[in-house]
Amino acid sequence: MTLAVRYTAARTLDTAVAPSTPPGPGEVELAPAYVGICGTDLHIFHGDMDARVAAPAVLGHEMSGRIVRVGPGVEDWQPGDAVTVMPLRWDDTCPACRSGHQHICQHLDFIGIDSPGAMQQRWTVPASTLLRLPDSLPLDLAALVEPTAVAVHDVGRAQVAEGEKAVVVGGGPVGVLIALVARAAGADVRVVELNAHRRLLAEELGLTVWSPGDDDVPALVREWTGDAGADVAFEVSGAAGGVDTAVDVLGVRGRLCLVAIHPRPREVNLHRFFWRELTLVGARLYDRGDFEKAVTLVADGTIPAERLISKVVPLTQAPAAFEALEGGGDVMKILVDCTDDAQGGAV
Amino acid sequence: MTLAVRYTAARTLDTAVAPSTPPGPGEVELAPAYVGICGTDLHIFHGDMDARVAAPAVLGHEMSGRIVRVGPGVEDWQPGDAVTVMPLRWDDTCPACRSGHQHICQHLDFIGIDSPGAMQQRWTVPASTLLRLPDSLPLDLAALVEPTAVAVHDVGRAQVAEGEKAVVVGGGPVGVLIALVARAAGADVRVVELNAHRRLLAEELGLTVWSPGDDDVPALVREWTGDAGADVAFEVSGAAGGVDTAVDVLGVRGRLCLVAIHPRPREVNLHRFFWRELTLVGARLYDRGDFEKAVTLVADGTIPAERLISKVVPLTQAPAAFEALEGGGDVMKILVDCTDDAQGGAV
Ligand SMILES: [Zn+2]
Ligand SMILES: [Zn+2]
Repeated sequence: MTLAVRYTAARTLDTAVAPSTPPGPGEVELAPAYVGICGTDLHIFHGDMDARVAAPAVLGHEMSGRIVRVGPGVEDWQPGDAVTVMPLRWDDTCPACRSGHQHICQHLDFIGIDSPGAMQQRWTVPASTLLRLPDSLPLDLAALVEPTAVAVHDVGRAQVAEGEKAVVVGGGPVGVLIALVARAAGADVRVVELNAHRRLLAEELGLTVWSPGDDDVPALVREWTGDAGADVAFEVSGAAGGVDTAVDVLGVRGRLCLVAIHPRPREVNLHRFFWRELTLVGARLYDRGDFEKAVTLVADGTIPAERLISKVVPLTQAPAAFEALEGGGDVMKILVDCTDDAQGGAV
Repeated sequence: MTLAVRYTAARTLDTAVAPSTPPGPGEVELAPAYVGICGTDLHIFHGDMDARVAAPAVLGHEMSGRIVRVGPGVEDWQPGDAVTVMPLRWDDTCPACRSGHQHICQHLDFIGIDSPGAMQQRWTVPASTLLRLPDSLPLDLAALVEPTAVAVHDVGRAQVAEGEKAVVVGGGPVGVLIALVARAAGADVRVVELNAHRRLLAEELGLTVWSPGDDDVPALVREWTGDAGADVAFEVSGAAGGVDTAVDVLGVRGRLCLVAIHPRPREVNLHRFFWRELTLVGARLYDRGDFEKAVTLVADGTIPAERLISKVVPLTQAPAAFEALEGGGDVMKILVDCTDDAQGGAV
């Protein structure tokens, strides 16, 4: 018998004993080690996604862990292997899948939202979702692979090239990871962030950060780019003003990569898209190549994962950690330690 | 002494005697033959562009004609040559020009808006703007080259490929030309148009046309595409509802090419851009390659130009033609005949 963190109703998490069942054909049972709390988890916690999430629901999709046992037909994997999971299952038959874009399958099962997630001591997933972690990579840092894969995907969708100037609007965990990945791709990067604490954290990572409240961001961009405007902007804020900023900073043929979720339609300056021949490109999730690259970037230190981790709490304190995160803004990443040791062993 | 059609104030055109001056170095003097009236000309006529257009202003930028005389230093061109004009002058120094996108120069001189246009019996332009017309191409049909170049540019920006499904929202002259060029590129095309007369004209050209009033366009697209959605949509309507339709019909990774001018910000369903990883790409004007391709498409009959020309009026009747066009919708293209013969010779 092992413990799981469950979402039971708006603003309510509990920890409950969860049955451990043997992995079926093609499945593996994992012992999750560290699981990051992400913005989507907080949305679920707030009750914003009750139409999609069937409570009680085990959350968590940013994880690292080790294999405990493998089901029938699983080769290539052994108990003890260090892994992370690309938490996607697709139907392979819909138009998205048939055109090679399985990660945006029209019937996507996002594991940790649509089906049980990683915030538990034992977790069974298809072996096809696994990625091997290098022995050298500490498992706490490896919990950053999934959000890094998001950033890799976004930078790829924006086709960021060496020497380009990129503006990241929104300096939370995803925005900072995008900035770091874009910088690693050779771009000159500026981050725009409202929250002073987040600005400080981003600056400590060597990023140049502007405040949309204090700074005239479009004017700074004109100065920075010799009046040309930026090549790329990432909208990661989810705010109406963030969309405006991202459009306003772009130069001729600039690309705006839309990362954030905007549940309601936004007013967009389409005239500028016409006049400057701008491009807007939506970016969602990642594919396996993005995930593999993310493992490399975290493992080789390009992503300074240890500096992005604000706090680690044992599984039993996850509900309190979610409540603390309500205030938002003052932390980057909180990890839930799901190891048996942290809970005093499997129950 | 020759005549010119001049915009003098909102809803007022006159015809006035215009001085003919010898072409300067690098310039040529043309005798315009046929000049199309386009939507932008109507905007100017309505007074909507008074901030940009200095009255009195000679309109017209969709033209064909012949060279009358060449200025000093002009080689390659002779009096009598049949030509059309790509009506753009750029500064070659701004960031747009330096990045190779001269057609969207930040200080673009659009000849016919920012400087005197073609609706006159004599017109002096830089020789660099000229494109040679094949002898076999009647000059009235050649007046369709400029709007065809717009369509070529749009189809190129949308990267339309053989076998793709494309929806053109707006079936006026530009929309129909886009549909024809996309069809020539191998796409399966549907046109969405509100005006019954325009629908009829588009159908007569062999296009399949839907009415957003009578038809459930997204449902028709789902049926047409086996639930996948369209690969490409062109927003040519300029209406808020047109933007919605263009976004709604697109499948996973679909591309929306924004052709129409939307002076005010529009509400855009950004969530769908995120969810389906859509792309929005602005398209403005054309480059020389687009123009050359347009000459070919009009000359070889891919664009059935004669069927797009609703009416030809002599220069002296251009003011009345603009007034008649106010009703809008019931015609495709009206040409102004600027030949000396049509006016009873040079005055
Ligand atoms: Zn699918
Ligand atoms: Zn320029």
